[in-house]
Amino acid sequence: MCDANLDLNTKGVVIYTWGNVSEVDRKNNLVIIKPSGVEYRAMQPDDMVVIDLHSGKVIEGKWRPSSDTPTHLELYRAFPEIGGITHTHSVNAVAFAQAGLPIPALGTTHADYFYGDIPCTRELSKEEVENEYEINTGKIIIETLRAQRCDPMSIPGVLVKNHGPFSWGRSASESVYNAVVMERVAEMALKTLILNPNSTMAQYVLDKHYKRKHGPNAYYGQK
Amino acid sequence: MCDANLDLNTKGVVIYTWGNVSEVDRKNNLVIIKPSGVEYRAMQPDDMVVIDLHSGKVIEGKWRPSSDTPTHLELYRAFPEIGGITHTHSVNAVAFAQAGLPIPALGTTHADYFYGDIPCTRELSKEEVENEYEINTGKIIIETLRAQRCDPMSIPGVLVKNHGPFSWGRSASESVYNAVVMERVAEMALKTLILNPNSTMAQYVLDKHYKRKHGPNAYYGQK
Amino acid sequence: MCDANLDLNTKGVVIYTWGNVSEVDRKNNLVIIKPSGVEYRAMQPDDMVVIDLHSGKVIEGKWRPSSDTPTHLELYRAFPEIGGITHTHSVNAVAFAQAGLPIPALGTTHADYFYGDIPCTRELSKEEVENEYEINTGKIIIETLRAQRCDPMSIPGVLVKNHGPFSWGRSASESVYNAVVMERVAEMALKTLILNPNSTMAQYVLDKHYKRKHGPNAYYGQK
Amino acid sequence: MCDANLDLNTKGVVIYTWGNVSEVDRKNNLVIIKPSGVEYRAMQPDDMVVIDLHSGKVIEGKWRPSSDTPTHLELYRAFPEIGGITHTHSVNAVAFAQAGLPIPALGTTHADYFYGDIPCTRELSKEEVENEYEINTGKIIIETLRAQRCDPMSIPGVLVKNHGPFSWGRSASESVYNAVVMERVAEMALKTLILNPNSTMAQYVLDKHYKRKHGPNAYYGQK
Repeated sequence: MCDANLDLNTKGVVIYTWGNVSEVDRKNNLVIIKPSGVEYRAMQPDDMVVIDLHSGKVIEGKWRPSSDTPTHLELYRAFPEIGGITHTHSVNAVAFAQAGLPIPALGTTHADYFYGDIPCTRELSKEEVENEYEINTGKIIIETLRAQRCDPMSIPGVLVKNHGPFSWGRSASESVYNAVVMERVAEMALKTLILNPNSTMAQYVLDKHYKRKHGPNAYYGQK
Repeated sequence: MCDANLDLNTKGVVIYTWGNVSEVDRKNNLVIIKPSGVEYRAMQPDDMVVIDLHSGKVIEGKWRPSSDTPTHLELYRAFPEIGGITHTHSVNAVAFAQAGLPIPALGTTHADYFYGDIPCTRELSKEEVENEYEINTGKIIIETLRAQRCDPMSIPGVLVKNHGPFSWGRSASESVYNAVVMERVAEMALKTLILNPNSTMAQYVLDKHYKRKHGPNAYYGQK
Repeated sequence: MCDANLDLNTKGVVIYTWGNVSEVDRKNNLVIIKPSGVEYRAMQPDDMVVIDLHSGKVIEGKWRPSSDTPTHLELYRAFPEIGGITHTHSVNAVAFAQAGLPIPALGTTHADYFYGDIPCTRELSKEEVENEYEINTGKIIIETLRAQRCDPMSIPGVLVKNHGPFSWGRSASESVYNAVVMERVAEMALKTLILNPNSTMAQYVLDKHYKRKHGPNAYYGQK
Repeated sequence: MCDANLDLNTKGVVIYTWGNVSEVDRKNNLVIIKPSGVEYRAMQPDDMVVIDLHSGKVIEGKWRPSSDTPTHLELYRAFPEIGGITHTHSVNAVAFAQAGLPIPALGTTHADYFYGDIPCTRELSKEEVENEYEINTGKIIIETLRAQRCDPMSIPGVLVKNHGPFSWGRSASESVYNAVVMERVAEMALKTLILNPNSTMAQYVLDKHYKRKHGPNAYYGQK
């Protein structure tokens, strides 16, 4: 888990303390997450904080957990298939979030990991921001996925408007992987739109690439 | 061959498993290629897979070959002068592919390696995607080169629409070199078009630079 | 202090000698600053120059101080809460300064450190440039903050038109931190504006994020 | 000299063999330059080639000199104050060259090293390209500087249209320094123009910054 957090830093999607990774232990209903505001370069495994999934209380750890912990807990409670969550402020994904736009599925790099556009949430209301902000950030992600009928395992990431990307996967390291993919496809999409604002990809190309890597008929990678 | 694959990673044109390099042994009609979905950092020479050029069957190797193998085989069969092929998802070249645009020949950096615009294929049809997708990706590259009367050794690369760049050369390492050139000239072209959408280069500058490095009257480099 | 200067270089916001960091010792009214035109890679702690805050005279040091020293002194005199100052020519922040535009507060990354747009000064007049240029650069920063009623601790940085970013903080290292934040949020804002020139962030999101990290009700980080 | 060539590579302005640096020994009328088409990573001091400034003949060296040697010689003959020359294909400077546009002086970073816009040559004619191309590249640089009444020591660089930047200085290492500055100010200018196509800098700011570092009244750096 500590390694997954440090990996964010080496992959260039996070500077300073701007990001966090968590993983859930479904058997024991425990979530392990990065401490709040601690620099990556000094982080050690025993800096991690263990939280009870249901109560949200700290079970173990010498630090306060990431301030985004309530967002992570909301997502783990809503989507039992999620095993790990990553949040970053990576530049290109943030640019789409700040513009209030989804990252459009324009190519096979995107289609290999995300089965459609990566949605951007609506703006949180004043009340949602002022009261239980971090919980409401989780709720708006869930609302967005449900409204757009996205399976969280097929669209393993969302942009929170004016904020940035959240991604997830079966494990912490898979969620980090998807965070790096989101940043890379955001950069590709931004440059594509500069060249041709009307760029699109046919649905059947999206289907083909996603299904080549995922589901019962996948044939990419090793068995 | 393994080194050529790893070189992709160090040159910054590939992250994770997003790319592949192959080389053909024309004497024995064998193609050696990267395994599918294996991380670069752990790759060893004996992870490479050996394929029969004509039958497409695996001759040697403990892994399944890259899922793009049928594309490589099509190209080796169509163009006997090709010795190595590289496929990447490098950001700037992908941006042109996603925009459905060729990389225009706007300067001498481009002209030193590519004798004209680097074409972008048409979109594959639904049928071409659903049946024998990877073979059809090879076929559409060949169709594009032939339709535009491109000599594959003078235009050693193509963009596949919504997908990304394929490049080639006399050897695997030359194809990697050309992949890096494509990415660099794509970035130059994107920025040039931002500054001046009507940028062009005279045909005689293209002729001069290409022929300074290639063909009977070349005078660049050592004899 | 020498470390803070070197940190600018490693963080990628400064190349060659293009930047400077200073720190003030309020008890003894001394300012310590980088020497003028000395390369980062060779810089040693004893290359730093010590200046009297009030007279501006060199108290200690074998080199001439940074040519921007008078600007630093103006800021230390005007804002007693400032402990350290950084000046860089980082690319994205400079782009806004050259465009004569503030870095707009478009997201929570910005709101976490800057409580509103990062202002850009007006152009200095011919007279202000020709006489006491560096002092006037300090004065125009102060004028800009006051005209826009910015608390220098809530907006710990300004762009000087056609020049670049100045940032500050309670210490030299905090001012370097803010210089890196300015560069990163400038890059995010530039890309956001390319995607959507009408991007905005609600005031209540700005309030929430800034106050989550700063002031009496902060709950980010460790107590 | 070999170090100056290698420095191009580390500073990120050159990949592969795409660039060259030379230095002149005015006392002996000798020019030392990089060999043609040799990779930077393997380059040794004894790979450098020594040329007679007047005849252009190789005096010493086991390789053929850079194919751009005649351009360098033209410049050394026309401008006796030049001691070293660098040519690169750095991305942002090339983008301006390919767009056929000067790099406009929009800020003090530029003004610290270049006393005005960095000009872009006209297009070479068909005849100038087909006969003595490299000599004519030198001539067009000289023509451009003279037509715009640029002192080569105040504007130590030019863009050759559709090609890229040439820079110079009192020594090889100063010319490399100016090549890095050109690339950096080109990136700043490109981003500035994206934000505000009408950006300008007052002449008196240009005067102040340039003269702060150069000429009899300079006060930047150490005496």
